[in-house]
Amino acid sequence: MTSLPTATEIDPGTLTALLDGRWAKIRREIREQVADTRFREPYGLDVERHREQVLEQLHELARTGRPRLGFSAEYGGGDDVGGSITSFEMLAFGDLSLMVKAGVQWGLCGGAVQLLGTRRHHERYLRRIMDLDLLGCFAMTETGHGSDVQHLRTTATYDPAAQEFVITTPDESARKDYIGNAARDGQLAVVFAQLITAGEGRGVHAFLVPIRDEEGAAAPGVRIEDCGVKAGLNGVDNGRLVFDHVRVPRTALLNQYGDVAEDGTYSSPIESDGKRFFTMLGTLVRGRISVAGSAGSATKRALTIAIRYGERRRQFQRPDDSEEVVILDYRAHQRQLLPALAKTYALHFAQEELVAALHEIQSAGGDVDDRRQRELESRAAGLKAAATWHATETIQTAREACGGAGYLAENILPALKADTDVFTTFEGDNTVLLQLVARGLLTQYRDDFQDLSPLATMRFLAEQFMDAVIERTSARKVVERIVEASPGRDDEEALFDRAWQCRAFEDREEHVLDGVARRLRQATPENAFELFNEAQDHVLRAGRVHVERLVLEAFVAAIDRCDDPAAKGLLERLCDLYVLSNIEADRAWFMEHGRLTGTRAKAIVAAVNDLCGELRPHARTLVDAFAIPEQFLAAPMLES
Amino acid sequence: MTSLPTATEIDPGTLTALLDGRWAKIRREIREQVADTRFREPYGLDVERHREQVLEQLHELARTGRPRLGFSAEYGGGDDVGGSITSFEMLAFGDLSLMVKAGVQWGLCGGAVQLLGTRRHHERYLRRIMDLDLLGCFAMTETGHGSDVQHLRTTATYDPAAQEFVITTPDESARKDYIGNAARDGQLAVVFAQLITAGEGRGVHAFLVPIRDEEGAAAPGVRIEDCGVKAGLNGVDNGRLVFDHVRVPRTALLNQYGDVAEDGTYSSPIESDGKRFFTMLGTLVRGRISVAGSAGSATKRALTIAIRYGERRRQFQRPDDSEEVVILDYRAHQRQLLPALAKTYALHFAQEELVAALHEIQSAGGDVDDRRQRELESRAAGLKAAATWHATETIQTAREACGGAGYLAENILPALKADTDVFTTFEGDNTVLLQLVARGLLTQYRDDFQDLSPLATMRFLAEQFMDAVIERTSARKVVERIVEASPGRDDEEALFDRAWQCRAFEDREEHVLDGVARRLRQATPENAFELFNEAQDHVLRAGRVHVERLVLEAFVAAIDRCDDPAAKGLLERLCDLYVLSNIEADRAWFMEHGRLTGTRAKAIVAAVNDLCGELRPHARTLVDAFAIPEQFLAAPMLES
Repeated sequence: MTSLPTATEIDPGTLTALLDGRWAKIRREIREQVADTRFREPYGLDVERHREQVLEQLHELARTGRPRLGFSAEYGGGDDVGGSITSFEMLAFGDLSLMVKAGVQWGLCGGAVQLLGTRRHHERYLRRIMDLDLLGCFAMTETGHGSDVQHLRTTATYDPAAQEFVITTPDESARKDYIGNAARDGQLAVVFAQLITAGEGRGVHAFLVPIRDEEGAAAPGVRIEDCGVKAGLNGVDNGRLVFDHVRVPRTALLNQYGDVAEDGTYSSPIESDGKRFFTMLGTLVRGRISVAGSAGSATKRALTIAIRYGERRRQFQRPDDSEEVVILDYRAHQRQLLPALAKTYALHFAQEELVAALHEIQSAGGDVDDRRQRELESRAAGLKAAATWHATETIQTAREACGGAGYLAENILPALKADTDVFTTFEGDNTVLLQLVARGLLTQYRDDFQDLSPLATMRFLAEQFMDAVIERTSARKVVERIVEASPGRDDEEALFDRAWQCRAFEDREEHVLDGVARRLRQATPENAFELFNEAQDHVLRAGRVHVERLVLEAFVAAIDRCDDPAAKGLLERLCDLYVLSNIEADRAWFMEHGRLTGTRAKAIVAAVNDLCGELRPHARTLVDAFAIPEQFLAAPMLES
Repeated sequence: MTSLPTATEIDPGTLTALLDGRWAKIRREIREQVADTRFREPYGLDVERHREQVLEQLHELARTGRPRLGFSAEYGGGDDVGGSITSFEMLAFGDLSLMVKAGVQWGLCGGAVQLLGTRRHHERYLRRIMDLDLLGCFAMTETGHGSDVQHLRTTATYDPAAQEFVITTPDESARKDYIGNAARDGQLAVVFAQLITAGEGRGVHAFLVPIRDEEGAAAPGVRIEDCGVKAGLNGVDNGRLVFDHVRVPRTALLNQYGDVAEDGTYSSPIESDGKRFFTMLGTLVRGRISVAGSAGSATKRALTIAIRYGERRRQFQRPDDSEEVVILDYRAHQRQLLPALAKTYALHFAQEELVAALHEIQSAGGDVDDRRQRELESRAAGLKAAATWHATETIQTAREACGGAGYLAENILPALKADTDVFTTFEGDNTVLLQLVARGLLTQYRDDFQDLSPLATMRFLAEQFMDAVIERTSARKVVERIVEASPGRDDEEALFDRAWQCRAFEDREEHVLDGVARRLRQATPENAFELFNEAQDHVLRAGRVHVERLVLEAFVAAIDRCDDPAAKGLLERLCDLYVLSNIEADRAWFMEHGRLTGTRAKAIVAAVNDLCGELRPHARTLVDAFAIPEQFLAAPMLES
């Protein structure tokens, strides 16, 4: 191990350039623009005032033209999907209600019109949505069905005589629930419903349904309720929608993947109902990716605040000195914040890579093979789960690290906590998402399983699954080069050998996945549910360790791109901390499976302690490198 | 292992009787009284309305006479310390702002007057405080000193000419901060300040300082600020107090442990400044015990809600059935909630035992030996840390287990989360508290270390510490009987052998503590801080595993008291789950130290899975046994 340069020798700007990555220009523009405007903190506002303020800010945002980035140039968009996701991520440094409301309007509603609709919808709606002349909702979730969207129960029955669909909520548990923009502002909703034509159900499709008239009154047959106060995100007007035989024209069906002719004949380019459904959902992957990025921004903001506070706050004298100790000098405090900071960097680079992959796939038009699309969805699901759980944990840690001061609204952390809390369960419940990741690995993203629910799939894995195939992300090449160049080693120093670390993550993933496959192979139609249920924590672990491997590889590849030696040295150490604190937390597994001896495991605990001490002087540099606009960090506890 | 009776055979009432314990009568009275009044949910109220509502409720509470329980009969109190703590615990099933405001008024302010003051203060103030004719504050924490109260910087300088103390805030970092009741309602504050007389500092003492006049205006020389909106507990008016040469009479000093004569001569029954300070703090241990109990109540409420929801909510079909699965039938869901439920039971019994110990000691008058008092303080500190971290984690888990519905204010969980969040850092930061626990163990609660700060103490442990002595709590005897009656065994079944389990917890505690002592013994005056800092995570672990052993023993003793065979069988299984999920989470340590083989460790993971499945049918019984008044569980998501 070479020693690190002193903290002052490392310019946070060098790290910022690396972090900013491919969409650096957009990041810089947004920082400059934010610096010119006065950020209005939402705390202390009541719900109604908060909603008003967020709507005003949404209009300001529309005027910047940036929300056009993700739409096709044909309708005045920017044809820049990656840039669009990046701008959501930057928006998430501020009031998260604004980020979510923007996400509903442009990401979910606008995205559905663009990707599930066809020319007739694009021409009529896209500009108005981009410019906020039309406010939209994305009405998928129902009170009774959140995770299991395939079984939602709102119906859209085609009436050939009138050439209309009749949208109906059969009972209260089928009402649309938690719908952003519904309670106050939305005019048009993308409503997901079971399409029925000629007496036959064709599965879930999306329909454009006006929910309010020009004056803001509920449209005929539409009942709108307010979800009321929430734990956070109170600047977003979530509501409930109940449809009582609401009629919309035949052309209100977003008909990219399925259409109904005037006479009621159904047609679709995709034969299987299940595959069609997952293809439709898959196009909406942007939402999950944006949530992962936004969770990252909130985490960075919390860590920046907590580390700045930890460098100012003093408590208890040293026994050999009358001076009180800066709390970030305590090992326990470092242990709370620095491994979380290392993981935040790792997740940042994984997110950057995911956004690039999305950008390539969605910019390629329709010419993407199914497997690539499905790998993307799986990575999005996994990273969304990892990033949002990390946000919940880290923001909580940051609050505790700031004591009573961290509990005051003026010091920002309470809103970060409350607003991000729902990220772990919206846009896909994390536990369900990790199971999707595991399913993807086990089926190797093959088509034949698209029809099946997660539970059903497991039953069919028996003979099919051979060996885990590590897929080739762009980061993967770098890792392979490093691993191949290194001799296998197993001495004490090996803990800091990147090749050893990468192999350890890979080996864990393969072993866990093989074990899951072996267990599920025992399934028969009779015991399938029980067998799956017994193995559920094993399945979740498979999803988790897979994501951890991908995240490490992204971190390694990013370090490889860094050409400033001092910055690179610092990142190498930070990556060691990411790896070793991960193995430390999971060292029981490594010991149980003969991968680590007890002595080795203890050495890892000691190494994490040492790395915390070594990185402590660089903590400020590492958070300053996030380059969060100062006005988002204006906590009074950092000023006095 | 014998199999459990079916769930319907076990009457939750039997468990309730055991849980209700020694102060069952008070618990029942409060339940009945609550059933008669309409609970007013605070969500949706703005800060000002919420504060008003809580003040009204505080007056209603005063009218019940129950707040008198903890005060001496001589002044109209109930002389029932344990009953008083129990009634705070019950209060914490409702709006936690009310519990905290009551705690400030009667526990902290009233407690300080009773325990630190003398007859002159008791006669003048106690009745008015009990009846809420006088609203009080407890002004200890300063902006710059929270955990390190010994070094707070407000001064009280005695002026013999006027026979007055002059209370002064030397600078902004010495302002009193986060003081409950200060921003709006408080009239009198117990102010902790450095006593200076005849030019000499005598350490921290408490003074009664009027902060508002009859009309509610700030008293001359007192500046009052509002801490504003907080993450939660917004029904409590926390504020800041700044004193500019505020004069109070000599008799305003709460002079139980130190007095100043008219001529300025200082006298105290306790020679050492440090010991006097800790003795004064020690009398205030009730606050921490109440917080631990309240954290328990909030946890029980969250678990009851999440488990009821988990029994109603269905998602995804079984592969072999068209019926959707109740989510509590999923192993992953059980894993989230059931070990948390087992720990909640364990902590409940430990809390009950702690309250009884407090009651015995404080009812004994002054005749308590120092060691017993210090053991009590240490257990209070440790249990407060364990119970509040458990609350934060479990309420978060409960929220996630209820998905989007759990994020709506109407479904209660958001307020529970937000309100309890600060529990981990107020009334003693948990990390600091665990270090106090470890210090107590290492010094064996001896007097000679009372003078020293946690850091300084560590330096002196070198030769002193011999072997960990397991102290004799009342639960301890039961455990010793069980352990002695059992042959040492090490087969597979041993995992479920209570004697093996108790030995495993004991052995871990002793080993960790010995290790810490060995490390700290290396200290020299030059390296003391660094050495302590390197060992800090080890020190914290010593505190943690000590508390875990105490908690287990309390659980074991409680089961021993249960004479209903069915209920007892259920509790035995629940205790297995508490033990084995604890060892599971810490199994790396057991393997590293040769206590478990890898095979054994895997068997523990499997056993936790099995226990979750086995206890699943009893989950509802176990939460119903908490007997939380139904109006505190009226979440709409549990009704539709």
